[in-house]
Amino acid sequence: MPSPNIAIVGLGRMGANMARRLAEKSFHIAALYDVRREAAAALAAELHSRAAQSLAEVTAAADFILTVVTDDQAMRDIFTPSGDNLLVGAAGRTFINFATISPQVHLEVEAAAHRAGAAAIEACMASSIAQARQGSLYLILAGDPVVVERTAPILESLSTARRYVGPTGRAAQVKALVNMVMNINTAGLAEGLGLGDALGLDLTMLREIFSQTGANSRVLETDGADMQAREHECYFSAAHAAKDSGIAVALAKESALHLPLAEAALSQYQLMITKGLGELDKSGIAELTFKGRCIL
Amino acid sequence: MPSPNIAIVGLGRMGANMARRLAEKSFHIAALYDVRREAAAALAAELHSRAAQSLAEVTAAADFILTVVTDDQAMRDIFTPSGDNLLVGAAGRTFINFATISPQVHLEVEAAAHRAGAAAIEACMASSIAQARQGSLYLILAGDPVVVERTAPILESLSTARRYVGPTGRAAQVKALVNMVMNINTAGLAEGLGLGDALGLDLTMLREIFSQTGANSRVLETDGADMQAREHECYFSAAHAAKDSGIAVALAKESALHLPLAEAALSQYQLMITKGLGELDKSGIAELTFKGRCIL
Repeated sequence: MPSPNIAIVGLGRMGANMARRLAEKSFHIAALYDVRREAAAALAAELHSRAAQSLAEVTAAADFILTVVTDDQAMRDIFTPSGDNLLVGAAGRTFINFATISPQVHLEVEAAAHRAGAAAIEACMASSIAQARQGSLYLILAGDPVVVERTAPILESLSTARRYVGPTGRAAQVKALVNMVMNINTAGLAEGLGLGDALGLDLTMLREIFSQTGANSRVLETDGADMQAREHECYFSAAHAAKDSGIAVALAKESALHLPLAEAALSQYQLMITKGLGELDKSGIAELTFKGRCIL
Repeated sequence: MPSPNIAIVGLGRMGANMARRLAEKSFHIAALYDVRREAAAALAAELHSRAAQSLAEVTAAADFILTVVTDDQAMRDIFTPSGDNLLVGAAGRTFINFATISPQVHLEVEAAAHRAGAAAIEACMASSIAQARQGSLYLILAGDPVVVERTAPILESLSTARRYVGPTGRAAQVKALVNMVMNINTAGLAEGLGLGDALGLDLTMLREIFSQTGANSRVLETDGADMQAREHECYFSAAHAAKDSGIAVALAKESALHLPLAEAALSQYQLMITKGLGELDKSGIAELTFKGRCIL
């Protein structure tokens, strides 16, 4: 079949890198859209593509529309069937929704897409910016398996691993759980290193011992040295961490489960936002747990 | 030099397995002691060794005395210089103290040993029962480096890795931090799996996704399947987890640090004790976070 027309909505660093990767793999990027029009224009110039001026224009230009927006509200904004939105003239289109948002919103979007004669699947990303650029994302997929199969050439160009987890909403649940556990481990690591520092221990030695023992974790590898060095350039922001832990804690409340560690991690990330540290990387949580760093 | 006489005090599963390992490596086990006299007698029969009837008898029989007791109180009991204790006639003896206890108690014991003309070092174990039997412990060492060097043949028979971290008290600090972070990760994992279960997700799939993403951790490998299967045979008890997190939280308080995740994990392990679950393995914390398991 001829190369399909692809559009990307939401051109943060993840969305922009996915566009770059797909262009490199010779996909036809028919339209780029972001509420920050200048971001869309700049990327369109870079990739010899076109910056769409409206969501309806995106849908008109593409067969597959990849959405990579920030949160529930942004997701509802682009799919709300009033004013300019992606569902205008959407019959036959396939939406691939990458954002980490509430499971419920994925279900709403899928229902709205069906009413418009379109299809929608979830493709939650459990990786970061570098992986988006290299096409080495880990994707958690959910939705109608027939539609998921149809998106395979695109998703295979973006990822090295794909895991199908069930009907729409399931990927968002799994992703919320992944990030909830990751955020707990990150907050706990920041406490361990912060206390080690307060005790006058050599933190490089302490991290090496953590790595050899029951304290080892993926976040020790990705964030431990950054916590020690106060290197918090953003790959995954504290604000995003708060959002994702918030989704998980809300799911727990709906299930009448009390999860004190998840709640404590959520409170710490919310405290970072309150203190104006929300745009630091998630490793910035160590600013709260080391003596004399962030004045409380 | 001739093989030194070794004694072991505290014959729980760790201490007993260390004795078995050293006997297998042809060390001369001159005395075995436990407050549970029948445990000492049984192990002495197994290893063709001798069950000491008093602590003074242990010290009289051995050059190197390995202590593997449960907590601060037990450690003070064996070293308190009144009544029967290990410091009677201890001149020239070397104590190797393996218990995970407060740093302060290690300093007290070292000072008391010095007054008795003896030496003492810390050898904290960041591994479990199987590793003790196989001689593949990970040891965190602290104390006078000359004394540590003297214990090398014994410690090398018990371990595959040894890390020297500084003067007495430092190993206990590092060990408290290792277990504090491990306990946080364990409590957080139990919450992630508990919520996944409440949402009706396939937990084997969820664990596999955790292992590929930022949610990965050593405790996912060691405890994840056990949490799912409710398999809580004790390798490291919830009561021990509470003790170790308690040591770390006390150190944080002395440093005027607020560590909400460590405190939440400590509360969960204390709750297990309150509910009569303290002798379950630490993975048993999942009994608190899965719907319909432990009635709250």
